[in-house]
Amino acid sequence: MEFTVNQVAAMLGGEVKGNGNDKIKMLAKIQDAKSGQIAFLSNPKYEQYIYTTQATAVIVKKDFVARKEITATLILVDDPYTSFTRLLEEYHKLIIFQKSGIEQPSFIGENSVTGKNIYRGAFSYIGNNVKVGDNVKIYPHAFIGDNVVIGNNTIIHPGVKLYADTKVGDNCVIHGGTVIGSDGFGFAPQEDGSYKTIPQLGNVIIEDNVTIGGNTVIDCATLFGDATIIREGVKLDNLIQVAHNVEVGKHTVIAAQSGISGSTKIGENCLFAGQVGIAGHLVIANNTSIGAQAGVSKSIKEEGQKLMGSPVFDVKEYFKAYAVFKKLPDLNYRLRELEEKVPNHNNSAQHSSVE
Amino acid sequence: MEFTVNQVAAMLGGEVKGNGNDKIKMLAKIQDAKSGQIAFLSNPKYEQYIYTTQATAVIVKKDFVARKEITATLILVDDPYTSFTRLLEEYHKLIIFQKSGIEQPSFIGENSVTGKNIYRGAFSYIGNNVKVGDNVKIYPHAFIGDNVVIGNNTIIHPGVKLYADTKVGDNCVIHGGTVIGSDGFGFAPQEDGSYKTIPQLGNVIIEDNVTIGGNTVIDCATLFGDATIIREGVKLDNLIQVAHNVEVGKHTVIAAQSGISGSTKIGENCLFAGQVGIAGHLVIANNTSIGAQAGVSKSIKEEGQKLMGSPVFDVKEYFKAYAVFKKLPDLNYRLRELEEKVPNHNNSAQHSSVE
Amino acid sequence: MEFTVNQVAAMLGGEVKGNGNDKIKMLAKIQDAKSGQIAFLSNPKYEQYIYTTQATAVIVKKDFVARKEITATLILVDDPYTSFTRLLEEYHKLIIFQKSGIEQPSFIGENSVTGKNIYRGAFSYIGNNVKVGDNVKIYPHAFIGDNVVIGNNTIIHPGVKLYADTKVGDNCVIHGGTVIGSDGFGFAPQEDGSYKTIPQLGNVIIEDNVTIGGNTVIDCATLFGDATIIREGVKLDNLIQVAHNVEVGKHTVIAAQSGISGSTKIGENCLFAGQVGIAGHLVIANNTSIGAQAGVSKSIKEEGQKLMGSPVFDVKEYFKAYAVFKKLPDLNYRLRELEEKVPNHNNSAQHSSVE
Repeated sequence: MEFTVNQVAAMLGGEVKGNGNDKIKMLAKIQDAKSGQIAFLSNPKYEQYIYTTQATAVIVKKDFVARKEITATLILVDDPYTSFTRLLEEYHKLIIFQKSGIEQPSFIGENSVTGKNIYRGAFSYIGNNVKVGDNVKIYPHAFIGDNVVIGNNTIIHPGVKLYADTKVGDNCVIHGGTVIGSDGFGFAPQEDGSYKTIPQLGNVIIEDNVTIGGNTVIDCATLFGDATIIREGVKLDNLIQVAHNVEVGKHTVIAAQSGISGSTKIGENCLFAGQVGIAGHLVIANNTSIGAQAGVSKSIKEEGQKLMGSPVFDVKEYFKAYAVFKKLPDLNYRLRELEEKVPNHNNSAQHSSVE
Repeated sequence: MEFTVNQVAAMLGGEVKGNGNDKIKMLAKIQDAKSGQIAFLSNPKYEQYIYTTQATAVIVKKDFVARKEITATLILVDDPYTSFTRLLEEYHKLIIFQKSGIEQPSFIGENSVTGKNIYRGAFSYIGNNVKVGDNVKIYPHAFIGDNVVIGNNTIIHPGVKLYADTKVGDNCVIHGGTVIGSDGFGFAPQEDGSYKTIPQLGNVIIEDNVTIGGNTVIDCATLFGDATIIREGVKLDNLIQVAHNVEVGKHTVIAAQSGISGSTKIGENCLFAGQVGIAGHLVIANNTSIGAQAGVSKSIKEEGQKLMGSPVFDVKEYFKAYAVFKKLPDLNYRLRELEEKVPNHNNSAQHSSVE
Repeated sequence: MEFTVNQVAAMLGGEVKGNGNDKIKMLAKIQDAKSGQIAFLSNPKYEQYIYTTQATAVIVKKDFVARKEITATLILVDDPYTSFTRLLEEYHKLIIFQKSGIEQPSFIGENSVTGKNIYRGAFSYIGNNVKVGDNVKIYPHAFIGDNVVIGNNTIIHPGVKLYADTKVGDNCVIHGGTVIGSDGFGFAPQEDGSYKTIPQLGNVIIEDNVTIGGNTVIDCATLFGDATIIREGVKLDNLIQVAHNVEVGKHTVIAAQSGISGSTKIGENCLFAGQVGIAGHLVIANNTSIGAQAGVSKSIKEEGQKLMGSPVFDVKEYFKAYAVFKKLPDLNYRLRELEEKVPNHNNSAQHSSVE
């Protein structure tokens, strides 16, 4: 991908000062930029670099006045930072959607259909009766099981596994190694101490605009017709566990290594930090914020709480309690001292003081 | 797969009322069922649906008396719920063992043998000197290293990696992305601050009837001839870490994101909740129950305990202690108040009270 | 691979007693060894086995005096344990570097170059403009994205995913299923409660002599030209989360299931136990030791500390505080008792005692 400075300026609604036919291939920071790259100058602290940069072009503020000679072609805009961010986003889309066509060998089963402008990487596998929308990118080693449905503009990164019957919406991104639709962890204890596997016959539904990190696992629902559901706009990080029959509400964000046990329903717009654990069969209210490594063992009914601890309670209360926890040996000592001072105090209680 | 109502009724030992030649393809809940599907009615609460359902057939209790007209064909049985569960299990087996044959391209090395009725998905890899039993299903992108042995009726889901020399028993299920036999985490510190890798030359043995979730990792043992062992009937969930030389005893169940450090021996019929951590070189007694997010730093010698905390102690004691923990700022305040009230009390102790 | 006893003795600088032309294929413990295998005798406790072992050869101390007949050929050395360890290492290298050549089908894109003595397993994928050094082993189902650079003697285990632009140094080992270069978890909240994805345009740099376990995930840096960096000699275990823009210092060792949040800089020679969590935007001093399941929420400035808890403080203080924590119900009881005994004490405080 290569653009002229004129093309970029037209996109940004900017004015070119210099050679508009110069070619640009990449974006870079002004202090690092090389020939063929475009940078921006927003913070005056970095002005020095514009006089020495090897960048082919630099985006600057309309009213920028150079104090020395500049070799780079300039694009004058209202807000260089915003313009550069927009360029980044456009570039990112180009990169993401750059791949197209069908690399060989790849596998596609019977009765499966794929949309326009699709990428199917080498060694990607599509089973039977699969429906894939337009502009979908399926990277190498991705596994798309039977009857899976994938919407438009969705990106399936390398080695993702979508078990049979999984549904994925539009504009989703699923990162490498993530497993969706594996069996829920359900076993019925038998009299002899062994366990019988409970068949897991539901599926997983991922709605639109969902992003899922790498090596995350989302189990299917237990019963026929039931689904583990990830609602619209949810963002799941890497290495997250989502058990059978869980529902994660719209626009909820969950950080890495958190785990949600079976049949729990998470509200909308919640925010979970890393390594959080949620027990099974709970309901978590909308807008709940849960701190790192916290554990939730009961339903959260009041919306908008910020929680911490294992089990969780109010985050401020947690830190106050934890501050005293750190001083517990001292508290214990003070208590023992008092016990000795108090007249007629039954000192037998002291036997249980902590050594 | 398609069955007639008569075939299903014969399997369940039930009686058909209606057209026994109707064809059934799928199971469903009575409130959702469509044509070509079979449902059941057990709970009287759902009776209303039997009069409107589009299900082709419904399993009902022998003595069920319809109050309105029913279009579905009925199968009369003693216990509709049990019958439906049995159908689910049979259906599940059919689904699981449905795949067979060898999809291309797939890879098999030298001197490797596979049993009857095997499935080898496209892009599955079998190395040299591998032995695979009957009815084994090896899904796409599974990696089976050199010298691996797999028993009968075992299912290797997509993208599972079995490193060289791994042994897997009969009737096992290993879910997508799980890595078995990777190097143990062993490094010898050197004088210059760097680490030298300790060669990891053992293997992993998975006994019969073991189920392992997705993206779990089980490392091989360190020494030649030693093995990391997962005993009969063990159930491991997703994203679990099992380090080198660990042994997990028969019928022990471990929930997602738990981790077991090197050389620890877990007893039989233990139950670990999610995100549990067990330190290395420990022995955990049979029937030990460990609560979510708990940490075990010492061996557990007494069988049948229920533990919680990090490090763990009795779960009931933990929750009692935690209840007071939440009130620690108040305890601290009460203690300070007392200190002020007690005559002749050395108030110097107060300097250390928590602010 | 097969060696004569003479060849092994020559390598170890030992003296042969017996038939030096005997063939050896494998190493084993003296109590388990079979024909075709070599064992060692170092600990006198095991001497009995040398008289009954079926090993073809045994490594013994130079001054070893047999008290009975020995059928195995002996190799006399100064230190049998060290010699055997050296053999193990050599054997391990042979095993590791045994694979070579290109299995088919495998994929390689345009303008990609690979060094001498390379292994490219079946179904391995190499994108465009990739540079791979000498003696590199790329196992089946590995994904090497566009513009990736891999140094010499590096081993990429099955199903590893290296996203585009990742750089990996010399002598690295990356275990199965690990994902390197996935998007950082960056989302900008919008007014309507939804989130906009922040393009992730940096990459990941893995320096020399780094070992990474299975199913670990390392995200790329956010900005162009920035990198998530794993410095020389770092050892990462399985299932670890390394977020965008993190830097892990030289020779730091991190155990399984630990997670490091975005933009945190970990020092050199640190040691983190399992399931540790580190918050974002922190700096952790060199030689910091962090106990299992601990959480770090503030930068650690003083080098060489040993820490525990969530949030962390000194490990010895933690265990002292935790010992009192376990007795908190008793402390609470003792405090209440005192309150009742103290004259004129304002008993209103008791309303808040924990029930």
